[in-house]
Amino acid sequence: MNDETLPNLEGPVCPMPLRHNEQIVMGHGSGGRMTRDLIEKIFKPYLSSAPLEAGNDFARVPAHIPSDKGGQLAVSTDSHIVTPLFFPGGDIGRLAVCGTVNDISMSGGIPLYLTAGFILEEGLQVEVLEQVLASMQSSAAEAGIQIIAGDTKVVEHGKADQLFVNTAGIGWIPEGRVIGGNQAKPGDIVLISGTIGDHGIAVLSARGELGFEADVRSDVAPLNHLIHAVLEAAPHTHVLRDPTRGGLATTLNEIAIQSNAAILLDEAKIPVQPAVRAACEMLGFDPLYVANEGKVIVIVPADEAEAALLAMRKLDYGKDAVRVGEVLDTPAKRVLMRTLIGGTRILDMLSGEMLPRIC
Amino acid sequence: MNDETLPNLEGPVCPMPLRHNEQIVMGHGSGGRMTRDLIEKIFKPYLSSAPLEAGNDFARVPAHIPSDKGGQLAVSTDSHIVTPLFFPGGDIGRLAVCGTVNDISMSGGIPLYLTAGFILEEGLQVEVLEQVLASMQSSAAEAGIQIIAGDTKVVEHGKADQLFVNTAGIGWIPEGRVIGGNQAKPGDIVLISGTIGDHGIAVLSARGELGFEADVRSDVAPLNHLIHAVLEAAPHTHVLRDPTRGGLATTLNEIAIQSNAAILLDEAKIPVQPAVRAACEMLGFDPLYVANEGKVIVIVPADEAEAALLAMRKLDYGKDAVRVGEVLDTPAKRVLMRTLIGGTRILDMLSGEMLPRIC
Repeated sequence: MNDETLPNLEGPVCPMPLRHNEQIVMGHGSGGRMTRDLIEKIFKPYLSSAPLEAGNDFARVPAHIPSDKGGQLAVSTDSHIVTPLFFPGGDIGRLAVCGTVNDISMSGGIPLYLTAGFILEEGLQVEVLEQVLASMQSSAAEAGIQIIAGDTKVVEHGKADQLFVNTAGIGWIPEGRVIGGNQAKPGDIVLISGTIGDHGIAVLSARGELGFEADVRSDVAPLNHLIHAVLEAAPHTHVLRDPTRGGLATTLNEIAIQSNAAILLDEAKIPVQPAVRAACEMLGFDPLYVANEGKVIVIVPADEAEAALLAMRKLDYGKDAVRVGEVLDTPAKRVLMRTLIGGTRILDMLSGEMLPRIC
Repeated sequence: MNDETLPNLEGPVCPMPLRHNEQIVMGHGSGGRMTRDLIEKIFKPYLSSAPLEAGNDFARVPAHIPSDKGGQLAVSTDSHIVTPLFFPGGDIGRLAVCGTVNDISMSGGIPLYLTAGFILEEGLQVEVLEQVLASMQSSAAEAGIQIIAGDTKVVEHGKADQLFVNTAGIGWIPEGRVIGGNQAKPGDIVLISGTIGDHGIAVLSARGELGFEADVRSDVAPLNHLIHAVLEAAPHTHVLRDPTRGGLATTLNEIAIQSNAAILLDEAKIPVQPAVRAACEMLGFDPLYVANEGKVIVIVPADEAEAALLAMRKLDYGKDAVRVGEVLDTPAKRVLMRTLIGGTRILDMLSGEMLPRIC
């Protein structure tokens, strides 16, 4: 410093209290003091982890679970734009955590870390953001994962819709585990972990678009513990996939294409809650195409099907698990359904849009 | 299949050509056939990688670089909302790739994988999306990283602003490397890899907000190769950080807080292009607070400073690298600047918003 006179270094650091009844303003996205304030006062109380506390633009974390250093990473990303932000059974925060936890889990891997990127609309109530963060915190705790990196951007009023959340996830796939949409084999059994269409109808109901109060709650849930139980019981599981956007029918079509296989569903076996069925009939929807956020399709060799089913039924998120179909011995990339009246029809992918902004 | 009659399994799969002059519609976010079409015809030609081709909701990748199995992961995320989407020297796609590549590189780690989450506004021209994807592809190739997982959502016209992109990144930090904002030590030298403020002024110029044509191009660039060269030359580097939102002054303040240190800058040494300085003077901005997207602050022990500088200057992205300051022997968490006229003043963080939606 040579002999220069230093300014007073101990002065107050420009206090800027951020209160719960405040609104997000453009300055919260500046990268300066207001961003820091938002992070320290609003984000950190909910989303805290050692890597986030370190305050770098990156998180430093171990690359594996302690018991297995030979495996691979599973990586996934999802942006969430659901409207409204809160709906029976969940909200955008729970959706953002569970959606990515589930995508990672579908690899047969163990989800470990999440990143969270927020796009906030100017004028958003800080209290709304806090509710979303609290929900992310509790969902992350339930799943047993850490949120290790985050980012916040703010756009002008009218340039976004309140709040969008992107989550990316990283998990660890133990050595030798090969699960994927291309692994379905002729003779395999198709299981579903519970009733279908709950999420889509719950969100629609929250929008007031049903014209009546449907008593349907979203199924949004982290499925990693359920998947763990399935893989303990049925270690040769071939495919795990959650039927989200596009519903069960679209997801099975994707698997049929990837595995170069035909899948036959039994309509009578497909579990649909009466309230969901009623709402779908009124709206002209088919529950087979309505989104789920807490269900998994499990495709297993026939000799492990019963074990997988029993393992799921022991858990809350799998208590309604049933066998719904089988993989046929033909390379046609199609999904067929044996209907209630005894015929067989092709179930195509969802074409066009049915329920926008459901996740 | 018993003795049932199968429907024709070989019929055409509902062709739905997607042309370059089309617009994004809500159905492209349905998760059904139109989403698949968008991915196959528009995304895949640009963003292709083995994990993406596998078509699962997760990517399966190795956890490390082949030469080093003992290290850790670096993980980062950033959402990008810059307006306009295209500006002199770059665009939102290049920004999204470089921003996350750089955040990972600031750990001293080697960026390996990126995820990309798109939020599209209904009505976006497919051609615009393609330009952004092409830019992401070329930036990823330049950085030598893979885009391994993606997601696309669509919101109604007026509920977003054309296109937002989130990228999350994963890198590998070699064993024993500890670089972070909390590592600055008294006596360390502060280097910057080139001129400051270029990105912010280039974006502002593209918005027509300058009132004149500033001949300034954004510096947006992947810095991983530059960082690699710095670490070869100066293996005991303490801090690497890119001064993005909030600019050089805010970023140094963050480091001062994390390291419990005071940093002294020399105003005369700080490199600013004449056109950037002119634009800042006209607008009442201080270039010290204007965003950069292709610059890095390097804080190194004094005995490695010259080697780090020379290593940077050999590369295009570091040709204007200079020494701009030092870390003082006082625990005050402040940034000071020795001004052109010989005084010393405190440089605070950016407070409030100066240039919204710059990245």
